[in-house]
Amino acid sequence: MPHYIGIDLGGTNIKTGVIDETGKLLAKASTPTRAAEGSKVVVDVMAKAAHDIAQQAGLDISKVNGIGIGSPGPIDFAKGIVLDTPNLPGFRNAPLRDMIADATGRPAVLENDANAAAFGEFWAGAAKDTAIQSIAMLTLGTGVGSGIIIDGEILHGSAGLGGEGGHMILVPNGRLCGCGQRGCLEAYTSASHTARRATEAVADTGQKSSLPRNTDLTSEMVFEHAEQGDALALRIVNETAEYLGIACINLCRLLDPQMIVFAGGMIHAGDFLFDKINAAFRKHAWTVAEDHVAIAPASLGNDAGLIGAGAVAADADRKGRL
Amino acid sequence: MPHYIGIDLGGTNIKTGVIDETGKLLAKASTPTRAAEGSKVVVDVMAKAAHDIAQQAGLDISKVNGIGIGSPGPIDFAKGIVLDTPNLPGFRNAPLRDMIADATGRPAVLENDANAAAFGEFWAGAAKDTAIQSIAMLTLGTGVGSGIIIDGEILHGSAGLGGEGGHMILVPNGRLCGCGQRGCLEAYTSASHTARRATEAVADTGQKSSLPRNTDLTSEMVFEHAEQGDALALRIVNETAEYLGIACINLCRLLDPQMIVFAGGMIHAGDFLFDKINAAFRKHAWTVAEDHVAIAPASLGNDAGLIGAGAVAADADRKGRL
Repeated sequence: MPHYIGIDLGGTNIKTGVIDETGKLLAKASTPTRAAEGSKVVVDVMAKAAHDIAQQAGLDISKVNGIGIGSPGPIDFAKGIVLDTPNLPGFRNAPLRDMIADATGRPAVLENDANAAAFGEFWAGAAKDTAIQSIAMLTLGTGVGSGIIIDGEILHGSAGLGGEGGHMILVPNGRLCGCGQRGCLEAYTSASHTARRATEAVADTGQKSSLPRNTDLTSEMVFEHAEQGDALALRIVNETAEYLGIACINLCRLLDPQMIVFAGGMIHAGDFLFDKINAAFRKHAWTVAEDHVAIAPASLGNDAGLIGAGAVAADADRKGRL
Repeated sequence: MPHYIGIDLGGTNIKTGVIDETGKLLAKASTPTRAAEGSKVVVDVMAKAAHDIAQQAGLDISKVNGIGIGSPGPIDFAKGIVLDTPNLPGFRNAPLRDMIADATGRPAVLENDANAAAFGEFWAGAAKDTAIQSIAMLTLGTGVGSGIIIDGEILHGSAGLGGEGGHMILVPNGRLCGCGQRGCLEAYTSASHTARRATEAVADTGQKSSLPRNTDLTSEMVFEHAEQGDALALRIVNETAEYLGIACINLCRLLDPQMIVFAGGMIHAGDFLFDKINAAFRKHAWTVAEDHVAIAPASLGNDAGLIGAGAVAADADRKGRL
């Protein structure tokens, strides 16, 4: 059976894994990125990590069929070039695909990290049922990462800027988002913005709350107090779910996917969050036709990125593109 | 050169045309739908219209390579079935593709009418440059029709409900849309809703306006008075453009198309409208990457639907799917 290496390139750590073509994870590891030392060092670290993880899986790297790389930043997919990555100095216009292929002797494919994570859930996670061919994923973290897969293909967009669901504008002239827009989905529903909305509400309001004042709250604290019945925390969580439900409607109207997958730390709230998202979706949805989309939690956790990177290589190999 | 018939099935009229494979329109005609007489009569009218238009183009119908049908309502694309059409009694679950193929002896393909119109602009209209392979189209009429084409393929969605950009929610709990949702793009920017917002503003406000009171305004009147400098009419037009600019941002974030095409009667306002849409798009867009999308008026006018229906047949033929 063919095997693939997935590399999830982060600003802090490089995660690697070996998967078989079904997406089964045979080995995984993590090593510091050493981003500050520049792109040449980082590429050496990635190549060594690829060799090491192959060995850990009991394979010589020459027996690995291909390597998938999930990288931050906008990417020129046709050329395999990282156009820009704010957290990785020296990677502007770096031909990372070919650098890794040259350093390992194996064919490589370069993908955006959020797309790779979505592809991981599609290939081996929440949407692994082969009857599911179209999904959208939203990862609720510091920002709201996003990946869209239609008919089994990652939607890159004409300039590599598609699949950025976190930056749909839901509230014209609304809250300022880190991307420079106002009213983005991210500015209401990321873990960071959910926490920030709670911090602001606690500071601004005369309303009583069990949440502490004069501190930067976390989304975990907000969910914990909401589950314990604090009215202010509950309102913040309900608003997050409301915007996520509306985001699901917009994804359905434009893309009509079979499944919308939510990932990121906030999904640990489980049914407490998903029941609210589903309720908001049903409350706001149109009446002209019934939506059959499934709204589901991701199942691969932090492994989605490295499994997905490997799966992108497996998919490219299967389609004769590797 | 191969030839194709396009049939644009409307509640009032059936429009037909003959195109060559480049999308050049060789003949066109229109005939009453006779919708009230039921689906069997309508199919007979369509088949006769197909024969007649072939003859008008100097072709025997047996020499026509295929027939494309643009039909209202949700469609089962795999089976060629019209699932429901509120304006055409008797068409619920009608196997229209095969009915037309049987009645004409030519292979047929069934498409949603808004998608067909978008495909017409893609194949032979505003986006006919073959370097353009991904577009979104919004038609500003009674509603806001929409079609999305990615990498040369119409985006149908998993249940045939994709590409409904008019029903993106832009304003949570906003204006009621005919689809049952609140705050849809359509509820702010269709020609009808633009006129209605003006009618409401004239009635509700103490503000002076050159627009007549106590009458149902049209979007033409609103644009005319706005161009003449009436402040209220100008505010309504600016709001319409503002929401359309934000809609373009959302289309870019999710789909990153090369071109967004606007169609429908309101585009006759020309640069007066398009300058405002472009300004709103630029004002609200993110700063993390530059958008290269072109925002352009449709060029086929009322022929987009029948040319597009024919082009859908030509495309299916070219791809071996007819």
